[in-house]
Amino acid sequence: MTKTINIKTKSRTEFVDITDEVSRLIKESSIKNGICCLFVPHTTAGITINEGADPSVKRDILTTLNRLIPFEGDYQHTEGNSAAHIKSTLTGVSITVIFENSNLLLGTWQSIFFCEFDGPRHRRVILKITSS
Amino acid sequence: MTKTINIKTKSRTEFVDITDEVSRLIKESSIKNGICCLFVPHTTAGITINEGADPSVKRDILTTLNRLIPFEGDYQHTEGNSAAHIKSTLTGVSITVIFENSNLLLGTWQSIFFCEFDGPRHRRVILKITSS
Amino acid sequence: MTKTINIKTKSRTEFVDITDEVSRLIKESSIKNGICCLFVPHTTAGITINEGADPSVKRDILTTLNRLIPFEGDYQHTEGNSAAHIKSTLTGVSITVIFENSNLLLGTWQSIFFCEFDGPRHRRVILKITSS
Repeated sequence: MTKTINIKTKSRTEFVDITDEVSRLIKESSIKNGICCLFVPHTTAGITINEGADPSVKRDILTTLNRLIPFEGDYQHTEGNSAAHIKSTLTGVSITVIFENSNLLLGTWQSIFFCEFDGPRHRRVILKITSS
Repeated sequence: MTKTINIKTKSRTEFVDITDEVSRLIKESSIKNGICCLFVPHTTAGITINEGADPSVKRDILTTLNRLIPFEGDYQHTEGNSAAHIKSTLTGVSITVIFENSNLLLGTWQSIFFCEFDGPRHRRVILKITSS
Repeated sequence: MTKTINIKTKSRTEFVDITDEVSRLIKESSIKNGICCLFVPHTTAGITINEGADPSVKRDILTTLNRLIPFEGDYQHTEGNSAAHIKSTLTGVSITVIFENSNLLLGTWQSIFFCEFDGPRHRRVILKITSS
């Protein structure tokens, strides 16, 4: 089963917690046990799993990525968003999570984040829910 | 179904667009809907998805990786390719894409790139196409 | 089929080779051909595949990550392990491997490593073995 999550980001760089929506789509499917592939169909965004409890964690990740890959630099791509493309490759655009009895097997502190690196924009995450 | 893409790289670091070959192998399979796991069986190469339209994007990614992880550095591995191993861990060697009605669900600007970090060499990407 | 590998790490940062245990769990399952999703349910650890033959490779990867993302920095998260969270996002917490005839399709030099970035701790890796 293929589903889509629509996201409207508000900032140039931002982590958007999509855990609840992923969890809901898995529960709504008729599949009890399997894997869920999450795919970001964008080249200036990414997906990651990290701590959702303390918002300073996502702030520290974004700040460190900005330090390592500055917005302005010796880039040849003329659209002004090379840094976003590079961050997308470092975080990745595909992640696979496991579920059992319709429940996501995430750790206590884990949240699934859509990573905006060139916002604000309308974005999508595609989910493929597969039984196993 | 398991398939292999053979690649002959020409440079020390290089992104090779394998989107058309992945797409062709999915179409040739009898599976209409599912996921395709792409796996790079090398330790000095990687795989990523990013913009394919403007070649300056892959140039900016490679240049930035070279700046962050220089070829020469305080490395203990004596084969002279530590930077390639480190880049492989940062991009990753496994990625999962989704297809429907035999079509890859990629974004408009997305291409799938084999990442050479220690070429030129003969390389492989292994695909597992799974129905869902 | 879902399985868990338990790991006891000994250092603050460390790569633990789990290839043999992943291989054993795949062989013990009744599934001959498919994919195995490996998932780390922690926010200060990761998973990667890289060279296992020469231990200086994992040392060079860890040292470079420590150089790029120092333990102490301009971090807002007050638990003192922001660097570990950031490294987790860069390596990732999910990886998918392929097996055929009960054998992992890894390259000659590849090992699967659990990445400890905030140890020593008790850790887990969750495996979902799926036929295809």
